[in-house]
Amino acid sequence: MLGLIREAVRHNPDEVVPPGTVTLIGGGPGDPELITLAGLKALFAADVVLADHLGPVNLLDELGEDVEVIDVAKHPRGKSVAQDTINDIMVQKAKAGQRVVRLKGGEGFVFGRGYEEVTTLREEGIVVRVIPGLTSPVTVPVLAGIPITARGLLHDFTVISGHVPPGDPSSLVNWNALSRMTGTLIFLMAVHNIGAIAEFLVNQGKAADTPAAIVIDGSLPTQRVVRTTLGALGQLVEDEAIRPPAIFVIGDVAGLE
Amino acid sequence: MLGLIREAVRHNPDEVVPPGTVTLIGGGPGDPELITLAGLKALFAADVVLADHLGPVNLLDELGEDVEVIDVAKHPRGKSVAQDTINDIMVQKAKAGQRVVRLKGGEGFVFGRGYEEVTTLREEGIVVRVIPGLTSPVTVPVLAGIPITARGLLHDFTVISGHVPPGDPSSLVNWNALSRMTGTLIFLMAVHNIGAIAEFLVNQGKAADTPAAIVIDGSLPTQRVVRTTLGALGQLVEDEAIRPPAIFVIGDVAGLE
Repeated sequence: MLGLIREAVRHNPDEVVPPGTVTLIGGGPGDPELITLAGLKALFAADVVLADHLGPVNLLDELGEDVEVIDVAKHPRGKSVAQDTINDIMVQKAKAGQRVVRLKGGEGFVFGRGYEEVTTLREEGIVVRVIPGLTSPVTVPVLAGIPITARGLLHDFTVISGHVPPGDPSSLVNWNALSRMTGTLIFLMAVHNIGAIAEFLVNQGKAADTPAAIVIDGSLPTQRVVRTTLGALGQLVEDEAIRPPAIFVIGDVAGLE
Repeated sequence: MLGLIREAVRHNPDEVVPPGTVTLIGGGPGDPELITLAGLKALFAADVVLADHLGPVNLLDELGEDVEVIDVAKHPRGKSVAQDTINDIMVQKAKAGQRVVRLKGGEGFVFGRGYEEVTTLREEGIVVRVIPGLTSPVTVPVLAGIPITARGLLHDFTVISGHVPPGDPSSLVNWNALSRMTGTLIFLMAVHNIGAIAEFLVNQGKAADTPAAIVIDGSLPTQRVVRTTLGALGQLVEDEAIRPPAIFVIGDVAGLE
């Protein structure tokens, strides 16, 4: 099926990604069939693809042999240098008239620097198209059997980047308000801080028996779901030595079977 | 391209949707190319498709002539009767050994009754597969050029169903806590109540000059974006006679160009 789509696109790739332009694709959580049709077509139309180690990386093996794949995986240190480098490569390749695709995991405009990349490219006068992707905080729980909402239980949900804990002056979250929200809470990038976060929420009055779930390796063959409660969450993450990638869901939906 | 994929799937549809099973597909916001490849394949494998008037309805014209399409659009009145009817049809068709697909707009587990449908089907002993879709509160702003997050501005975002206003005893939202959240707020189903919601948020102390944006007819050819502020939002919705479908984004990201 992928080969069929690739061959159809390669007959006239300029229609899908015009030369000298950049297409930013949200690739979804990792399963190669959970990219959109529009995203897949743009990927197959590319002369050059910039990708990291997130999202549907197996699709890179399906590209034509003449396609240049640039690995722009970012490492924990030197992040901003790496981002400048990514931007520079995209600008240079587009200005050389190539069909450039930037493949990201999940949705690039949800904690994904999509806005920074689009802004930089447009400042350079480069035409950019955006193709959205399945965002992990919603898709990963759904694939693991945890609904984001359920009728009669809640009317809202909040997605939080947990890379900065409560009490840290660099946090942009109003943690006190968050602890009083009644809808589903979904934490990303929180493996290191989830113990402190759970303790804070309970200390602020959120019930310790609030259902909680951890989805590890969401959407991958190694996916695992652990069900617990908010009060037991921190100890469990420590005992089971949970490692990223993991997504934490807190709220009544985490207790539904 | 769609015909190509359809023909490839129709050679062996049982591999994609086994007879006697139901596949729930999140169809995304409406653009027929913004469904996932997995979703498209399942749709083309179906004997019978239950669809409403949301999501990628144009894809229904691409199905084979032998596929039965059942319009299960829900009307404002008699909602729960209609939901029972949808469930009954799916159970009956699956038990008759058909390949059943339920096509939903957006993501079926975000304010979409996906959980109710899956639960009912499983209680009847029917095998259900879930294929996630692009969820409108994230995808519609992104397609309209509004990022959900931007580096340095926020670490969280909240999605709220605005079908019940602040102060209504049937609301499940902690509106006071919501008014103090610092991340992006995204309201769905809120055209009728957005004036009351904006007024409440400002009265609770949220800055009246907080940027706000309305995306009307998101992802459709008639899509329109209106930029304003939280303080001016209610009057603007009235003056411009905004009608559903519309999504409201409140927060710094709504002011980014």
